[in-house]
Amino acid sequence: MMLPMDTRPIGVFDSGLGGLTVVRQLLQLLPGEDIVYFGDTGRVPYGTRSAETIEKYARQDCRLLLGHDVKLIIAACGTVSSVAPQVLSHLAVPAMGVVEPAAQAAMDATRSGRIGILGTAATIRSASFQRYMLEARPDLRIFSQACPLFVPLVEAGWIQRDNDATIAVARRYLQPLIQQQVDTVILGCTHFPLLSPILSDILGENVVLIDSGAACASRCARELERYGLLNHSKKMGECRFYVSDCPDDFTHVAQMFLGREVKEDIHQVDLEFLASRD
Amino acid sequence: MMLPMDTRPIGVFDSGLGGLTVVRQLLQLLPGEDIVYFGDTGRVPYGTRSAETIEKYARQDCRLLLGHDVKLIIAACGTVSSVAPQVLSHLAVPAMGVVEPAAQAAMDATRSGRIGILGTAATIRSASFQRYMLEARPDLRIFSQACPLFVPLVEAGWIQRDNDATIAVARRYLQPLIQQQVDTVILGCTHFPLLSPILSDILGENVVLIDSGAACASRCARELERYGLLNHSKKMGECRFYVSDCPDDFTHVAQMFLGREVKEDIHQVDLEFLASRD
Repeated sequence: MMLPMDTRPIGVFDSGLGGLTVVRQLLQLLPGEDIVYFGDTGRVPYGTRSAETIEKYARQDCRLLLGHDVKLIIAACGTVSSVAPQVLSHLAVPAMGVVEPAAQAAMDATRSGRIGILGTAATIRSASFQRYMLEARPDLRIFSQACPLFVPLVEAGWIQRDNDATIAVARRYLQPLIQQQVDTVILGCTHFPLLSPILSDILGENVVLIDSGAACASRCARELERYGLLNHSKKMGECRFYVSDCPDDFTHVAQMFLGREVKEDIHQVDLEFLASRD
Repeated sequence: MMLPMDTRPIGVFDSGLGGLTVVRQLLQLLPGEDIVYFGDTGRVPYGTRSAETIEKYARQDCRLLLGHDVKLIIAACGTVSSVAPQVLSHLAVPAMGVVEPAAQAAMDATRSGRIGILGTAATIRSASFQRYMLEARPDLRIFSQACPLFVPLVEAGWIQRDNDATIAVARRYLQPLIQQQVDTVILGCTHFPLLSPILSDILGENVVLIDSGAACASRCARELERYGLLNHSKKMGECRFYVSDCPDDFTHVAQMFLGREVKEDIHQVDLEFLASRD
């Protein structure tokens, strides 16, 4: 029997390069799939913009990916997933953000029902994770913490387990969650998995960290299977990378998130072109 | 004798709200002047963009201010002053960045000839302060340090003198300058003056901090006098504030930089309009 098969690429976008941690997970889970990644590096960060602006940008990012004939879109961006999820529900292809998969994984993991959420300021303000979980299980106790310094710390490469500055910042953010005795913490931003060793050291080994990118990649694999959209070809998939501005340290930062060398060409998308697709 | 007089406003722009520290200095030095401020909050930060993009944005920002009939333009932005100073030299009105005034103030202040520079990644990469000073005085020893975490720390409001996280970050950045025994340190970003107490504690009282915004405001006063452009009216000047995106915490952050309440209306400039003025 021939399996149904779809060789179109998976589309992934983020406000910057953090979404590459989701691509990293996809490469492991679905090595045969082609991937088109768009990092809106010319307009990063989304987390400090107004909700209206975030929605507009997310719409433009989706259009760009649809122009590459993708079969599914992942908003690998906690901010878009939280502040503008409606953009993802009116597309011609299946689409998903990081909120639902991570929230579900946290609900599966918690024993005490006390869950912490770390995210950018915009993600936390939106209360997206909280709303999703409390709707499913009103008995849960949810504690959230905005961590605006984590993204710049990761982008500065200060992710070593013994970095005293990153440890001091993380202690300040985690203290309230420790006091609330959470047993599960959602990393609600695709940058944060790179801080997992430091966060684990502070929270202790009994607290489960939920990597929202990994949860999202698993959900993507299940959705592709469900819709008969998997690519069953035996050859390795290819990645294409698009950005809207190419800063000097692009390759270095991209490699940190992707966990491997970036050998592919990086294509630059004109911001005015992007804005015109509105 | 009637003094020559010009009642047009002074135009000030920055990639975000940090430039309000320059406005704060102008209000003290030149209380009779009207000021038009533009903070490009919709495209902040400039420091991580490519040189080409920074130049384009700076050009658009100047056009916007010229549309308000300003008599002088201040690029209250270390990144623009460093990476795209050429934009400031071809305008219909006098214009200045923060590099030359601060570099001059540092050369006046140093006794040992050993000067440190703190700035965003783009400012430090451009070596702008260094080039200016070494051209005037090749005998100087200049040591520079990119501090990409200072802007987000200030914007998070972590500026209290006893904030352990900010102290840990600052120690890491300042250690190399202390080892080089600098006696003068330029704060090459308009956000950094808010960290002066912490930086002074770490560097010791014998090290002079040069506030690039204050140096720039003094230079502005001298230039206006030189060109006969001062406003000698006895009434207090007015401020008008324009931004390209208005995040929720705007007022709070703006007040921190301005050092007073923001009672004026904040006008929003459309980014597409801004980009079309190219």
